[in-house]
Amino acid sequence: MISVGVIGYGYWGPNLVRNFAELPDARVAWVADLRADRLAPLAARYPATRTSTSPADVLNDPSVDAVVIATPVQTHFELGMAALRAGKHVMMEKPLAATSEEAARLVEDAERRRRALMVDHTFVFTPAVQKMRDLTGAGELGDLHYYDSVRINLGLFQHDVNVLWDLAVHDLSIMDFVLGRRPVAVSASGLAHVEGSPENIAYLTMFFDGRLIGHVHVNWLAPVKIRRTLVGGSRRMLVFDDLEASEKIKVYDRGISVDQSPDNVTQMRIGYRTGDMWAPQLPIREALHAAARHFIDMISTNAPSASDGHAGLRIVRVLEAATQSMASQGRPVTIAAGAAV
Amino acid sequence: MISVGVIGYGYWGPNLVRNFAELPDARVAWVADLRADRLAPLAARYPATRTSTSPADVLNDPSVDAVVIATPVQTHFELGMAALRAGKHVMMEKPLAATSEEAARLVEDAERRRRALMVDHTFVFTPAVQKMRDLTGAGELGDLHYYDSVRINLGLFQHDVNVLWDLAVHDLSIMDFVLGRRPVAVSASGLAHVEGSPENIAYLTMFFDGRLIGHVHVNWLAPVKIRRTLVGGSRRMLVFDDLEASEKIKVYDRGISVDQSPDNVTQMRIGYRTGDMWAPQLPIREALHAAARHFIDMISTNAPSASDGHAGLRIVRVLEAATQSMASQGRPVTIAAGAAV
Amino acid sequence: MISVGVIGYGYWGPNLVRNFAELPDARVAWVADLRADRLAPLAARYPATRTSTSPADVLNDPSVDAVVIATPVQTHFELGMAALRAGKHVMMEKPLAATSEEAARLVEDAERRRRALMVDHTFVFTPAVQKMRDLTGAGELGDLHYYDSVRINLGLFQHDVNVLWDLAVHDLSIMDFVLGRRPVAVSASGLAHVEGSPENIAYLTMFFDGRLIGHVHVNWLAPVKIRRTLVGGSRRMLVFDDLEASEKIKVYDRGISVDQSPDNVTQMRIGYRTGDMWAPQLPIREALHAAARHFIDMISTNAPSASDGHAGLRIVRVLEAATQSMASQGRPVTIAAGAAV
Amino acid sequence: MISVGVIGYGYWGPNLVRNFAELPDARVAWVADLRADRLAPLAARYPATRTSTSPADVLNDPSVDAVVIATPVQTHFELGMAALRAGKHVMMEKPLAATSEEAARLVEDAERRRRALMVDHTFVFTPAVQKMRDLTGAGELGDLHYYDSVRINLGLFQHDVNVLWDLAVHDLSIMDFVLGRRPVAVSASGLAHVEGSPENIAYLTMFFDGRLIGHVHVNWLAPVKIRRTLVGGSRRMLVFDDLEASEKIKVYDRGISVDQSPDNVTQMRIGYRTGDMWAPQLPIREALHAAARHFIDMISTNAPSASDGHAGLRIVRVLEAATQSMASQGRPVTIAAGAAV
Repeated sequence: MISVGVIGYGYWGPNLVRNFAELPDARVAWVADLRADRLAPLAARYPATRTSTSPADVLNDPSVDAVVIATPVQTHFELGMAALRAGKHVMMEKPLAATSEEAARLVEDAERRRRALMVDHTFVFTPAVQKMRDLTGAGELGDLHYYDSVRINLGLFQHDVNVLWDLAVHDLSIMDFVLGRRPVAVSASGLAHVEGSPENIAYLTMFFDGRLIGHVHVNWLAPVKIRRTLVGGSRRMLVFDDLEASEKIKVYDRGISVDQSPDNVTQMRIGYRTGDMWAPQLPIREALHAAARHFIDMISTNAPSASDGHAGLRIVRVLEAATQSMASQGRPVTIAAGAAV
Repeated sequence: MISVGVIGYGYWGPNLVRNFAELPDARVAWVADLRADRLAPLAARYPATRTSTSPADVLNDPSVDAVVIATPVQTHFELGMAALRAGKHVMMEKPLAATSEEAARLVEDAERRRRALMVDHTFVFTPAVQKMRDLTGAGELGDLHYYDSVRINLGLFQHDVNVLWDLAVHDLSIMDFVLGRRPVAVSASGLAHVEGSPENIAYLTMFFDGRLIGHVHVNWLAPVKIRRTLVGGSRRMLVFDDLEASEKIKVYDRGISVDQSPDNVTQMRIGYRTGDMWAPQLPIREALHAAARHFIDMISTNAPSASDGHAGLRIVRVLEAATQSMASQGRPVTIAAGAAV
Repeated sequence: MISVGVIGYGYWGPNLVRNFAELPDARVAWVADLRADRLAPLAARYPATRTSTSPADVLNDPSVDAVVIATPVQTHFELGMAALRAGKHVMMEKPLAATSEEAARLVEDAERRRRALMVDHTFVFTPAVQKMRDLTGAGELGDLHYYDSVRINLGLFQHDVNVLWDLAVHDLSIMDFVLGRRPVAVSASGLAHVEGSPENIAYLTMFFDGRLIGHVHVNWLAPVKIRRTLVGGSRRMLVFDDLEASEKIKVYDRGISVDQSPDNVTQMRIGYRTGDMWAPQLPIREALHAAARHFIDMISTNAPSASDGHAGLRIVRVLEAATQSMASQGRPVTIAAGAAV
Repeated sequence: MISVGVIGYGYWGPNLVRNFAELPDARVAWVADLRADRLAPLAARYPATRTSTSPADVLNDPSVDAVVIATPVQTHFELGMAALRAGKHVMMEKPLAATSEEAARLVEDAERRRRALMVDHTFVFTPAVQKMRDLTGAGELGDLHYYDSVRINLGLFQHDVNVLWDLAVHDLSIMDFVLGRRPVAVSASGLAHVEGSPENIAYLTMFFDGRLIGHVHVNWLAPVKIRRTLVGGSRRMLVFDDLEASEKIKVYDRGISVDQSPDNVTQMRIGYRTGDMWAPQLPIREALHAAARHFIDMISTNAPSASDGHAGLRIVRVLEAATQSMASQGRPVTIAAGAAV
């Protein structure tokens, strides 16, 4: 039985508590939040869970094995380091930290102390993204050509981070998981339409070694909601539309064939192949349940994971480089591999 | 009665001939194409139209007032200059020329000789784009925030130009017409998935003075066909989906309001406004008919036009800068205003 | 403060309790259900609410002003009559009763005893249906021509009632409210694909006086989910698609015009009018909250209502006639007006 | 080489002439139409084709092997009989005739004279309908449960036939071909919204032996265009949406399973199965080309065909019975098998 403490009980906190409470081998020992009024309703529903307005109460309790940190990103590093120092395993809300340096230090510290460090990239645990990963992993798409994602809607404007850190973080974590490849450079552009606010519209291109390119379009100021990802491969291409009630994933047996005879180098012929479309049935389950399950398993097995701190660090490095590129109108920024990865 | 010669009778040629033939004050005197077999079927349908495999026959005929040039872009400059030297008015297929220098010289030469020079940006003459222009021109969208367009499908790969020159040229001409603003710099990225071919996927960001940004995504290797443009403004936002049978334009009374009291500079509140959606009925008419009509009118009035050589030059400058930026992974490239504009 | 007892705590029960509990001038005094295990979770959430496995406990408590009956339809009559006899106001889940005779007796008894009798036609309280009613009521659609609704999906097969009583009851209550007209005859057809089960697919035509026709298609065995209603009028037509996230209601300025000169009776010309489409923004609110509010208001004002027992009786009469017609392959069945209406 | 005469050169005539002209083993010898102005443009395009304003010229030419009759339905019988008497093979536009008696006499006469009689049910030759037939024929859908089709739009109101004869004829011919079953009775309802005009909205239920039901909804006065057919089977269900650019056919691995233990007759459990969706790629080809090809093949092989006069008669019988039922508000009308079928 793993004893879990949750630090930060805002929008996502109740979902975290509920899902950990439902696991047979975990129990939610503590919930901490600076706002006492947020904690009040917990007592009736989870009488065995203690509450506090001080994270220290959670970290100082030696019976707590692991903490889940769901606070604003600026506090991730300090709380995460304190938790690791207290010997706790840590599940961190995305993004892992506000800078890649902070993220790298969290990863290093967790490794040195042999504690599990997981980032809650919840989308990675959805049936749709798992299916995409199965398809790319099995080579069903062939050589990967591009990853293109649009995540736009009206609101919610954030005050502390730009739209990349708020929305693109989802696409980056999905892309990292589905492609299993890391970009070597980025070029990003964006704009803030409200004076004094961070960028609310952004475009991010990611360059990979080989013939692979990634792109993300995020926007808080769109008239319509779109959540659509295209993944192009040499054998097949797929569309992931998260707003479809069913048929979220459609796999298209489409592409090109290149006929390049030796006599005819300059006159290659390109043929177009259009075959069937197939929408695999996806199981219905809550992604956060699988994420919570995964964290508990990480603690016991201590195995590397596609959602561990290294993944979190990779995402933060891209976000950081993208923000840097965005400040200079798309100037490309190389992503250092870094010691921790 | 304007006597028109058409040079180049490929995919688009028959449409050009038909539309000019239908105008009461124009007649198609000549059609020239290097391939004699292309010309053969013309005789039965247009017995009064002469054909030739040599453009010189058209240009040397003093009774010809105007020529329409629908040949590959690499030939635009030479044919256009020859036509202007021969005293003809010129309608050029898009893009106007293969380089901005060539385009600028065509513009200068036409002005010096007082000949009409029009570029066939056909989309500008569609009812949907005209409606968009009416809405922005009347201030219905408020201050313009962004222009975002996606134009993707499977095929046709071009051998001589990259996907920006083939597909983005449409978006750029629409954007130029609808916004009435010109970008000052661009950042573009793209990739060729076929060895030795031009880029088949590209992303292009355009920076404007003030709080306006533009972006175009074009792709010849997509599993699905998408033709969708978003235009965001401070009062309203619109979606133009060219694949909709009706309701191509949807105008959304949505946006944000910023409440920024003097006491409270750092804590501004953003409100979200979601009102009605409205899809104006659009007339049904062939855009190329209106384009042909426009060319004949330009000849007689000699007035500036949103589709004249200057517009063609503006588009070519963006394409040229974008191609340059794409070669260096998004490094921003400034667009010089240039003497001719 | 109205004291409410809820009888029947199945699928819908928790929603009823929550919504009545949220009203400032109502309290949920009792919840009764035959299954003790259903009642167990109530205590933690609603400590002031008493529970029982016997409806009699609710009806015998003189402090209870009103009861909400959410039990299987076969029990509606007996429970409803008992509640009225006990002097309670009654809100009944749809359909009001299993036969029109039972429904009529409930209506009569409620009127005689001056008790409120409301049927929970929840859809009538949705913003979309209220908007439709506003549009028809204001004459925006002109003369009403037809009402056509499709409500199909896979599951849930009911054992005790056919698909008309389960699904079409929604359409009939919406139609009754939106049109404000009652059909004079029906023709229905349907089929049971499972031996020994009630019909799982059904088609129902309703005939009105004048040039108005209604039709409902319901199906538990469809590959896709559809919830779409068309309302045709002489001035405008509308589409209500309940699966749209926003834009549930689209109003089309389309129709025909008939040009019938006296000289030319046999050669009338029909013109087609296609104007703008308009999707009014709808408020976001829970329909059941408004329904609960309405019941409490009915009790205090004692005014007639579009959701009172008479409406429930009208719906049951149509369902009864339709089931009769369905048994004889569409033979038309007249709907008697009846004394209670 | 089959020599073909086309009688009636209205909306559909040019398509017929073009497709027969493109067949290598057919030639269009004659085109007749009462309106001389309709015939004028033919000479330029088809110089070898003779034209006349009198059908007799076509029928009296002994070199003509076959005639295609594309005139209003009221003239089908007389022209068809005259053609058969003249020894011609006949391809008739749908519907075959204005009454089942006329249709039966055409069938009988063609058989007696050993002439081919085909009805141009063009939809039957589309790739989508052929795929549906392949799927049902191979048992991919299992036992057939229902056929449900919606064919609605704004216009064109016909003056001489009701909406069933104009639009439902398409659905009936598709259904006849795809199911390979014939209804034994029908119930129909409808309404004319224009005084003195035929019904412009109609609903038609078809009853078959066994657990199969069919339904068609047709409407000339709809705000939106819908062309959608559902076919339900015990193993799979499909949706045919003719307005989809690609993916016109979607096959769903969905349905129910019935668990009916002998102990538990009254309490059968129904399980819901939701599997993958699959959209087969369909070839792109013109249906009328295949129909013309089929007619020429019928002439040489003299084999029965799914589009022969018997099929035409079956469709007319359903239309006739439906019109009869519609006149009495859905009273069921039995469809006699009849000697000719």
